[in-house]
Amino acid sequence: MSRIIYINGAYQPYEKASLHVEDRATLFADSVYEVIEIKEGKQVDSEAHLKRLCYSMSELSIEPDFSIRTLPFIIKEVIRRNRVKNGYVYLQISRGRAARDFIFPDPATTPTSLIIFARSKNPDILNDKARRGIKVITHPDIRWKRPDIKSTALIASVLARQAAKDSGADEAWLYNDKGFVTEGAASNAWIIDKNQHLITHPATSEILKGITRDGVMRLAKEFNLTYQQRPFTLEEAKQASEAFITAATNLVMPVTHIDDCPINNGQPGPVAQKLRSKFHEFAQLTA
Amino acid sequence: MSRIIYINGAYQPYEKASLHVEDRATLFADSVYEVIEIKEGKQVDSEAHLKRLCYSMSELSIEPDFSIRTLPFIIKEVIRRNRVKNGYVYLQISRGRAARDFIFPDPATTPTSLIIFARSKNPDILNDKARRGIKVITHPDIRWKRPDIKSTALIASVLARQAAKDSGADEAWLYNDKGFVTEGAASNAWIIDKNQHLITHPATSEILKGITRDGVMRLAKEFNLTYQQRPFTLEEAKQASEAFITAATNLVMPVTHIDDCPINNGQPGPVAQKLRSKFHEFAQLTA
Repeated sequence: MSRIIYINGAYQPYEKASLHVEDRATLFADSVYEVIEIKEGKQVDSEAHLKRLCYSMSELSIEPDFSIRTLPFIIKEVIRRNRVKNGYVYLQISRGRAARDFIFPDPATTPTSLIIFARSKNPDILNDKARRGIKVITHPDIRWKRPDIKSTALIASVLARQAAKDSGADEAWLYNDKGFVTEGAASNAWIIDKNQHLITHPATSEILKGITRDGVMRLAKEFNLTYQQRPFTLEEAKQASEAFITAATNLVMPVTHIDDCPINNGQPGPVAQKLRSKFHEFAQLTA
Repeated sequence: MSRIIYINGAYQPYEKASLHVEDRATLFADSVYEVIEIKEGKQVDSEAHLKRLCYSMSELSIEPDFSIRTLPFIIKEVIRRNRVKNGYVYLQISRGRAARDFIFPDPATTPTSLIIFARSKNPDILNDKARRGIKVITHPDIRWKRPDIKSTALIASVLARQAAKDSGADEAWLYNDKGFVTEGAASNAWIIDKNQHLITHPATSEILKGITRDGVMRLAKEFNLTYQQRPFTLEEAKQASEAFITAATNLVMPVTHIDDCPINNGQPGPVAQKLRSKFHEFAQLTA
């Protein structure tokens, strides 16, 4: 459990960490967030995460009333105060607190709300999971049409992840009206075809442009693997040589089953495993 | 401003009314809400609103840890403590507070969070507005695919309403991929054709089944007006005899312009005005 949570300039004990009920995060999901991995006390690709946070804010016209350049220092302090060696940092910025109205409040008189917390996670548990691989189900993509904005309007993803759990799976791959897989409920979706091409949905407004997804593309170049950014169908996915997901809190996680259809004979694939094992060597680690 | 806010069993002063940052309303928009009009101290159609609240919770598998039958008494007390004669009550129920995870927390150990606040609104201002009518813009419907669930995942509606304001309008009518108007960002959309038929989108999963919308159907029967629940196009809307919106906080509000195209010569229509003036006579008012 996170023992100290940063809220709007103050480091609060966990139990006291609260936001006013009329904060727009709570009333309208009018807020954006990022999750950054912490590895051996270091922030993984935090620069890219903060850049994406700025993109999300910009798309929603949220104007932070603090300098983004101060965030790395606050994040570092939150990690230190919570003594997180391995785990993640969560950041959320909302348009702030105002009497309930759909219309944006005046940014001049409405400070944005900033929350940062950190939590430890035992990397051995995740690595054990990666050695076994995970199962995914498929689920209609009923999210809003701008998942490229990392907003907290996550109820559709919550329902998809819960549906996965109810089926004994770990993630749900979402498919659009045309039968193409967009991404996972909280991860990007990848397959590897018989010709060893890595395939993932292009970074349109239909998916979140994952930081770990970008990392895998960097890695692919290092290892002379070819990758394609194009939509793939559920049928194509089920006939893939390998499948995996990427996310900051899962890194590269092999998928062994899609809707109970075994991929790579139901075993984690060698390429996914290699990408996972090499991931941090090519990531940006910030002390 | 609401002076007292009810939160999880306690009546809190406004400034102290807060929710833990890990409440699922704040992190995931994993919550549902209702807005009930208060007229002369009475709750308008509150039974129907609470029934819809139960529908929303049921669709999201949120199991409240209190009896729904206690809500009317709490609402009444919130109205009393805030001395609201005319205005509205806002209710929100979230799946509760738990360490951040998309998966539902165990309902046995995670109490839901209940917020209720009330706010006064001068009915004269709204009535003046209705005498002038409002303008609407049209905007793509980019919301999630279950707006029949009244969840707080409202960022798409926020953006649409703000786009309306930026264009000098009061509401945005949302249209789907097929060019049909689904509803407004925070209201139901109605037109009246040349044959005096009232037309509104059917209550599918694409729209919120409005309580005021239901009220208008009751009224239409009283006044021998025919109504049709069918999708209508933007083109059809712009050629309508009349147009109006319905919502608990707007009642029946005449629309005089759609994307600057005048409806009924840019004047509030007689049918919309009649429906508005008679609305409360046929609504359920609870002391």
